[in-house]
Amino acid sequence: MRGVILHGPRDVRCEEVPEPKILHPTDAIIRLSATCICGSDLWPFRGLNDVTSPMAMGHEYCGIVVETGSAVTSVKPGQFVVGSFCLSDNTCPHCKFGFQSSCEKREFMTGAQAPLARVPLADGTLVATAELPPDDLIPSLLATSDVLGTGWYAADAARVRPGGTVVVVGDGAVGLMGVLAAKQMGAERIIAMSRHKTRQELALEYGATDIIAERGDAGVARIKELTKRIGADSVLECVGTKESMTQAVQCARPGAMIGYVGVPHGVQLDGQSLFFSQAGMLGGPAPVRRFLPHLMDLVLGRKINPGKVFDLTLPLADAAEGYRAMDERRAIKTMLRL
Amino acid sequence: MRGVILHGPRDVRCEEVPEPKILHPTDAIIRLSATCICGSDLWPFRGLNDVTSPMAMGHEYCGIVVETGSAVTSVKPGQFVVGSFCLSDNTCPHCKFGFQSSCEKREFMTGAQAPLARVPLADGTLVATAELPPDDLIPSLLATSDVLGTGWYAADAARVRPGGTVVVVGDGAVGLMGVLAAKQMGAERIIAMSRHKTRQELALEYGATDIIAERGDAGVARIKELTKRIGADSVLECVGTKESMTQAVQCARPGAMIGYVGVPHGVQLDGQSLFFSQAGMLGGPAPVRRFLPHLMDLVLGRKINPGKVFDLTLPLADAAEGYRAMDERRAIKTMLRL
Repeated sequence: MRGVILHGPRDVRCEEVPEPKILHPTDAIIRLSATCICGSDLWPFRGLNDVTSPMAMGHEYCGIVVETGSAVTSVKPGQFVVGSFCLSDNTCPHCKFGFQSSCEKREFMTGAQAPLARVPLADGTLVATAELPPDDLIPSLLATSDVLGTGWYAADAARVRPGGTVVVVGDGAVGLMGVLAAKQMGAERIIAMSRHKTRQELALEYGATDIIAERGDAGVARIKELTKRIGADSVLECVGTKESMTQAVQCARPGAMIGYVGVPHGVQLDGQSLFFSQAGMLGGPAPVRRFLPHLMDLVLGRKINPGKVFDLTLPLADAAEGYRAMDERRAIKTMLRL
Repeated sequence: MRGVILHGPRDVRCEEVPEPKILHPTDAIIRLSATCICGSDLWPFRGLNDVTSPMAMGHEYCGIVVETGSAVTSVKPGQFVVGSFCLSDNTCPHCKFGFQSSCEKREFMTGAQAPLARVPLADGTLVATAELPPDDLIPSLLATSDVLGTGWYAADAARVRPGGTVVVVGDGAVGLMGVLAAKQMGAERIIAMSRHKTRQELALEYGATDIIAERGDAGVARIKELTKRIGADSVLECVGTKESMTQAVQCARPGAMIGYVGVPHGVQLDGQSLFFSQAGMLGGPAPVRRFLPHLMDLVLGRKINPGKVFDLTLPLADAAEGYRAMDERRAIKTMLRL
């Protein structure tokens, strides 16, 4: 079969790779219905994370189970399943606490930009639908695997409440999913920080009530103006840079929570400043598995349409163009057809 | 009257000072029933905060109202009152959100190490009892003003829950109050980190189930051992140094909250480490006013005895010895008789 392999900075190829096999009794093999490129795939693509050997790319997936290891009991061949990018047993103390992304047996999914993929810890990781979903819901179901689950976690960690005021820092796919999540959680005011027209439009469609194009001090000033100098009850930090984190802290009212899901790169927080801001923080890799059944229900019931975040769809063979389009911000997020 | 003035590092004197007067219609003057020395008073005493002009010391207080400004309506002369070290109007959006320590009109109390003190924003700040309390409850009522309220906030910010496992970093007066608070909030296991016998004993009396004398990596290893490698659900950071904050983060399980109330000195948090630890954080100057009515009820109902944290009582004239005793850790906390 052909799968996507990163050989070095900007050198991503769709090439012949071996078909996955069951390696452990707890594995499953799935035939993917669709796959996609994640914003985090751009870190190694851009050479910002080292690539020391060829990397099998892809960690967002949904599809049909084709084979299960001998220990797998909760899913069976023929079922449609979605799983998180974090593989977890869903039984350890961290999983039971709702933090499956820190599972004692945690692994990170790889090799999902391919027609077939091996999913370790299948029982804990995969959630099956009652029946095969209609094709038009595949993009949205695929989105629950990471990008929606991550935006949702940002809103959950930021303790978005009905009637609350929310600021979303970052207009990437995760930020847009954060807008959707905040809307679903009943936020009254959702302020999206974005300077890109297509992203602004999607943010508004997902429930943003205000768009702020300014950044830095000017952005903070606009937020303060919009919130009568109070600041936001909840802030979703969906970028991971020093600038975006500073923005998030400065937009937060005392007692607000910041849910941060952009992997911090070069971010140092000054303890005393954070102390006097009284901004609370909770972040990390999203425990998507906690939210997955609920998110899949929302998609299957056609209550939400996260799949709209895919504004470019390409055949798997053209994956390299998909990476370039996201790198150059020509596309918000690229879905790959199989 | 005589009050306590800090003139420079280690130069604290009880000397003649003018009696306080009503300066604003929202002020009240109280006659203190007792006062005390705070751990934070040691920062300027030790020369770690600059003292550029003589400072009227003291911000913990309870006593009888003797005069009120023309705008004060909620308390009247003759009533016994307690107030927070943070003065607040209790009506602004930050106060209503429960973060009175970030009140739009916030001031910090000063000059309470004296027989009489001016309390600005009296309506928002002071909480009166229904009748005059018995003398033996004065130490505990005084404790609610700051040290108990701060320990309580640490536990609240760390989201201590019934049945939870709590680690308290710091065996100063605030840490000990954190133990008391965690016990009141129903924590099942309360692990106090302390290497001082008298503080260990008081921690056990306040509800600690385990004492750990080790610090640093050895301390973390002991916590992991006691919690079956999971870590704590809630961590109370009651010191404010780099070492104590590192300890707090490393003791926290993924998804735990750290309530931090020691003013951070020299603390820088690495964003990426914090991200992958999935430890949540909320800190700041405690919004004691939020908790004050409940804490006073607990004291008046003799459900708690926070006043035991005062292990040295001196006349106001001997305040300097009280500072020295705390500085040298001969005393946990010094109460001053008036």
